[in-house]
Amino acid sequence: MNLENLFKPKSMAVVGISKKNPLSPGRIIFVKNAFEMEVTVYGIHPEGGEVDGVNLYTRLDELPEIPNVLVIAISADATLEYVQSCADLGIPACIIIGGGFAEIGAEGMKRQEKLVKIANDNAIAVLGPNCIGVYSPPLIDTIFMPTERITRPPKGTVALISQSGGVLVDQFFHKFKEINIGVSTAVSIGNRAVVDETMLLEYFSKVDKETLNIAFYLEGFKSSRRFLELARESEDTVVAYFGGLSEHGKSATKSHTASLSGNDRILSAALKQNLIIQPRTELEMLTDLKLFEILSHKKKPFNYYTIKEGKVAILSISGGHGVICADLLKKYNLLSVEYTEDEKREMKKLVNPVARKIASFNDPIDLTGSAKDEDIENLIQYLSSIDRIECIILLILPYTPSISFQIGRKIANRVTADKKPLVCFIPYIQKYGLIIESLELSNVPAFHSIEEAVQAVSALRMLTRNYNVKQKK
Amino acid sequence: MNLENLFKPKSMAVVGISKKNPLSPGRIIFVKNAFEMEVTVYGIHPEGGEVDGVNLYTRLDELPEIPNVLVIAISADATLEYVQSCADLGIPACIIIGGGFAEIGAEGMKRQEKLVKIANDNAIAVLGPNCIGVYSPPLIDTIFMPTERITRPPKGTVALISQSGGVLVDQFFHKFKEINIGVSTAVSIGNRAVVDETMLLEYFSKVDKETLNIAFYLEGFKSSRRFLELARESEDTVVAYFGGLSEHGKSATKSHTASLSGNDRILSAALKQNLIIQPRTELEMLTDLKLFEILSHKKKPFNYYTIKEGKVAILSISGGHGVICADLLKKYNLLSVEYTEDEKREMKKLVNPVARKIASFNDPIDLTGSAKDEDIENLIQYLSSIDRIECIILLILPYTPSISFQIGRKIANRVTADKKPLVCFIPYIQKYGLIIESLELSNVPAFHSIEEAVQAVSALRMLTRNYNVKQKK
Repeated sequence: MNLENLFKPKSMAVVGISKKNPLSPGRIIFVKNAFEMEVTVYGIHPEGGEVDGVNLYTRLDELPEIPNVLVIAISADATLEYVQSCADLGIPACIIIGGGFAEIGAEGMKRQEKLVKIANDNAIAVLGPNCIGVYSPPLIDTIFMPTERITRPPKGTVALISQSGGVLVDQFFHKFKEINIGVSTAVSIGNRAVVDETMLLEYFSKVDKETLNIAFYLEGFKSSRRFLELARESEDTVVAYFGGLSEHGKSATKSHTASLSGNDRILSAALKQNLIIQPRTELEMLTDLKLFEILSHKKKPFNYYTIKEGKVAILSISGGHGVICADLLKKYNLLSVEYTEDEKREMKKLVNPVARKIASFNDPIDLTGSAKDEDIENLIQYLSSIDRIECIILLILPYTPSISFQIGRKIANRVTADKKPLVCFIPYIQKYGLIIESLELSNVPAFHSIEEAVQAVSALRMLTRNYNVKQKK
Repeated sequence: MNLENLFKPKSMAVVGISKKNPLSPGRIIFVKNAFEMEVTVYGIHPEGGEVDGVNLYTRLDELPEIPNVLVIAISADATLEYVQSCADLGIPACIIIGGGFAEIGAEGMKRQEKLVKIANDNAIAVLGPNCIGVYSPPLIDTIFMPTERITRPPKGTVALISQSGGVLVDQFFHKFKEINIGVSTAVSIGNRAVVDETMLLEYFSKVDKETLNIAFYLEGFKSSRRFLELARESEDTVVAYFGGLSEHGKSATKSHTASLSGNDRILSAALKQNLIIQPRTELEMLTDLKLFEILSHKKKPFNYYTIKEGKVAILSISGGHGVICADLLKKYNLLSVEYTEDEKREMKKLVNPVARKIASFNDPIDLTGSAKDEDIENLIQYLSSIDRIECIILLILPYTPSISFQIGRKIANRVTADKKPLVCFIPYIQKYGLIIESLELSNVPAFHSIEEAVQAVSALRMLTRNYNVKQKK
């Protein structure tokens, strides 16, 4: 099976285009791809004619070429006939939108078995059934939500593969954009009758060169052995967020995709051992992906894989932020830094006379609202020179009048020169866009809450660990 | 001491206006209030003249009236002289911006003692020192951040009182706006030499009628006994978020405000016993305040104080969201609902034929992406009629084509008619504004993540508990 037909098709056909209902999935998919995407699209309708000004073909075997992929958005029984047509005509891939298979019980289970047999016998890469398909810009988009209702994220290196179409859309098409996670591909696997998480991990890891970070939302493995093996071997970063791990959630997944998560602890240990990063909350997944994206899609001017013990210096211009951050270090198993009297004296010399009087150079360092740009630059430089500090969390609030709008660029320059990993908290709002962009263009990840900044350092430590395990091999 | 002079002044004077530096705190405060706020402002500068076209007086005793409040933004020693002038002239309140008092050690401590003596002997309501003051729209704003760098939240019922100016600005002037928390007043207490959290709790609880929800960021109590007593008696909802509770954070607060948090568990128990709601994270504080705001600043069409056991029905149109929500119930000590076969049959009848085939009526209910507006309305109505269900969490994703843009209003109408508490997850983004606003105008709180929706139900349960304790008295 060649999965490239799903993600890099030159041509596609769509069946299940309603002439009456412009909001039917098949119709949306047909029109969206015809007008918004680069793939060549053929619509099939038994009566021919047109929708929205685009001509339709009456039969699959009438098309001027064999398409790379067929999107099927019709009833379950008719779906099987079309998959058989793919076999007969040599169409190498299809995406099955509709349900009525394993998820509805015994009758559907039988139908799914037939589907799997046709697919395997004919090496057809079948995605679904019961899924929303693929978003692989600029070529193909079968996510049958009207485009005006979703938000397309920027181009980047993260692929998201999800057992839930709803979670895929919510994360990929709303939340990734908000915190600037660049993406390559979104895949909804539905019942994963044929193409499953393991095949997709292999594809994105070995074939797709754009993808450098592969994220999964799963409620259990179809089969875990090969998946774990592939993850361990992968040069990409693999992230897996699991739903249904609690007792209550477990019973919920039965109804959802008929898959059971195993024991929570055993699962987590297996993921860790195989270098898969497992976020525990939605927010943590977003933080991880944002961090990994920033570190991978641009040239890295320095090595971020240096966080072994988890020793973090906190540099703040707000005492309260420093306190909250110190509280959070413990939650994420990170360590604080104690400064010697000499170090404190050195730091004191480096800040302006007004701030010097009121600043605190005990951990967490609080330069106060009287801090100026240069003070922050100087302190970053100084803290970078202390060997036992593995990473700096900078809590920066650009609303105090003594901080200039150039602060982002200045921090970025300092970090690039000093080569010590630095993670930033800054209110991640539109009006600070210039500051945030200066940071992120220089590989300094910036986050909207203190907790995300701490999560990012925790993720950096896992990256370091995984990197070292891979180096040893 | 009459705190109304701090929050409802008719006139104010400012000392510490730099003619050279337009970004000095005193200058920003003077100009901001002169141009943006309704209070009458008098600027004091020994040389007279003007800044930004506004005339200055040379001395405090030259002003045409005794101002309600004096804002002092000068050095520590000169500050004491001005406080003495307040005593001499009968100015009943002052806000001290500058530091150099207890936070800098022995010398400052002495200075602060002098300050306290003058204030107490003359009943002057002194806010600070070492603070950013007060934002009480439309009258007064001493938050000396340039206005273009902050974001003013909407008018409402939440007062935020903070021991950290940075936390105050970050929450109140960025995050409250994002999730639509309506505010009354922001107060930075700094060293709380005279006016402290207890006096402010009393003022906002008993005097200020606009404030119905009083929130604190504290790193320890100045003295807790009276505070706890007042909170227990208050008709307002009192929320206290504590920083510095971890071992690491505790040592941090020493440097910040010289106050120690007590034992974490003892503190939490005391708060709970005295009906104070204690969020454990920044996100939870925001969720709590948003919920309390929505429930208090509009007419309540029904009783929200009904969540005793914490039994919550989950209604989703995305299986994955249902699973994640079910996982989160446990984290927040909430309970799921089991449905009888009869109930499942009833629910099945209430949804459209396409969704009926694929929907799951086990908890969490998953209507699937084929659900239509009417299905959601019908299910809310049905679930509301089941007595053992105390609250409904609705996970709504308005990107499936079968959900209309009217869905918010339809849910709101249903909830108002059925009078069962309902909390909504919906992507909280601009393009869904019409839907979100229809919900929130009808007291249905809407949140951007599943976790926030679950937090809100947890907060509702605490409200119920506190309400019942108060009823018994």
